[in-house]
Amino acid sequence: MKRSDRLIGMTYYILENPMQLISLPFFSEQYNAAKSSISEDLAIMNKMFQEEGIGYLESVSGAAGGVRYIPQSSNDKSETFIEMLCRRLEDPERLLPGGYLFMSDILGEPDTIREIGRLFASRFSSLGIEAIVTVATKGIPLAYAVATFLNVPVVIVRRDPKITEGSTVSINYVSGSTRKIQTMVLTKRSLKQGSTVCVIDDFMKAGGTIDGIKNLLKEFDAHVAAIGVLAEAEDEEDERVVEEYTSLVQITNVDVRNQQIEVHKGNFFNQ
Amino acid sequence: MKRSDRLIGMTYYILENPMQLISLPFFSEQYNAAKSSISEDLAIMNKMFQEEGIGYLESVSGAAGGVRYIPQSSNDKSETFIEMLCRRLEDPERLLPGGYLFMSDILGEPDTIREIGRLFASRFSSLGIEAIVTVATKGIPLAYAVATFLNVPVVIVRRDPKITEGSTVSINYVSGSTRKIQTMVLTKRSLKQGSTVCVIDDFMKAGGTIDGIKNLLKEFDAHVAAIGVLAEAEDEEDERVVEEYTSLVQITNVDVRNQQIEVHKGNFFNQ
Repeated sequence: MKRSDRLIGMTYYILENPMQLISLPFFSEQYNAAKSSISEDLAIMNKMFQEEGIGYLESVSGAAGGVRYIPQSSNDKSETFIEMLCRRLEDPERLLPGGYLFMSDILGEPDTIREIGRLFASRFSSLGIEAIVTVATKGIPLAYAVATFLNVPVVIVRRDPKITEGSTVSINYVSGSTRKIQTMVLTKRSLKQGSTVCVIDDFMKAGGTIDGIKNLLKEFDAHVAAIGVLAEAEDEEDERVVEEYTSLVQITNVDVRNQQIEVHKGNFFNQ
Repeated sequence: MKRSDRLIGMTYYILENPMQLISLPFFSEQYNAAKSSISEDLAIMNKMFQEEGIGYLESVSGAAGGVRYIPQSSNDKSETFIEMLCRRLEDPERLLPGGYLFMSDILGEPDTIREIGRLFASRFSSLGIEAIVTVATKGIPLAYAVATFLNVPVVIVRRDPKITEGSTVSINYVSGSTRKIQTMVLTKRSLKQGSTVCVIDDFMKAGGTIDGIKNLLKEFDAHVAAIGVLAEAEDEEDERVVEEYTSLVQITNVDVRNQQIEVHKGNFFNQ
């Protein structure tokens, strides 16, 4: 097989298997090529991935070695993308009663979701994350996008226990914005005790929901290594209960009466 | 830039933008290469994609022409994947009271979800689908996976109206398995009138939920061109209300008392 053919096949395989260690013999056998040729292919790929701003190949030496694709998003690309998100979210027609923002159209776009996933995965790829945790419903696509790039499973916390899930652990928490007591449930067998996890959600105001997830995760002895939210909004009473998180955009000065809103970059680039 | 470098960049771009028409001049400019070289690159890519069983490049001629990546999954690959799913689902430990099956672990795996998405997208790519519709919660990741490969948005029907969504259309329906009257809601501005859509869900028994979605979609004058479910289960009373659908696996002979279950290939290959 020619190098050009092989490069296409290998590029596909590597992109589909981020964060996964792939041995050189695997490619050697697959494409019936010498290990030295495969090494050269991988060097070309590594250079090209970096030029395209989509990550790099990490080499792991030794008998059990190989390469691992670490997805990244270049600063330029990330900044352009987040700026574009801000401009789209600033549309006053998105304002809903209560100071909420209509985002379902944006959250419905698979390529936008995938790009958001790539950004969070870039930032969190070195934290040894073993699972992505989110709460139903709107955080789910974002959680899967991050999980795809980090190659780890998604665990979904529910607000309503379903009979189809087996035994569960549940907690009550106070929602920051509505001040109502709510319940959160996680199926026992869905998360291994002591996992290192990343919490992903679409929106954070006071942070009551994410604080609830953190408390629920304590029951699983989980270590929350990162929290990523697409949009954070100012809480009027400034009673934020979650301090450490990564946000892509920040919503400020929501004025429903005058149909005004400001959307700025979140703290993603400050970290 | 060398052909080998260009092929890596182009493979990445094309895989990230399925079903999207990409003009030759776009690549010419991007990689500073003659159109004839780009044409050759695309021919190599087309051949290699088919060898790998991941789809093909469709050429569109004329001034507004270019190429479009049509994702496919070869029959061999699809069959191996579905067989593997059947074996995993047949584990008696998955049986839950009421004859339900624990699938959350499998539904939590991003690569499994992505493969399921590729399969449905392969089957539905020629139907002119403009949006994927699903109902919260478990169908959501599957819906996004299909949508990624078909390059269309996802629209989520909810069981609980949220105040953050604006005006909605709702219907009542009877759930086939519980015989209870339930409500389904879709935000008005989330789906254009008259769209051609594909409905995706994780599980179908009598089909009451999917029938409910179909009725709700009538209010949007939508044309349901395809219905895809991961798993279909026999309904004891054989009162199935949905006739035309595509399933990957079929669950039969569930015997909770004796902890037995059979899982076979669905109708995916019969169509």
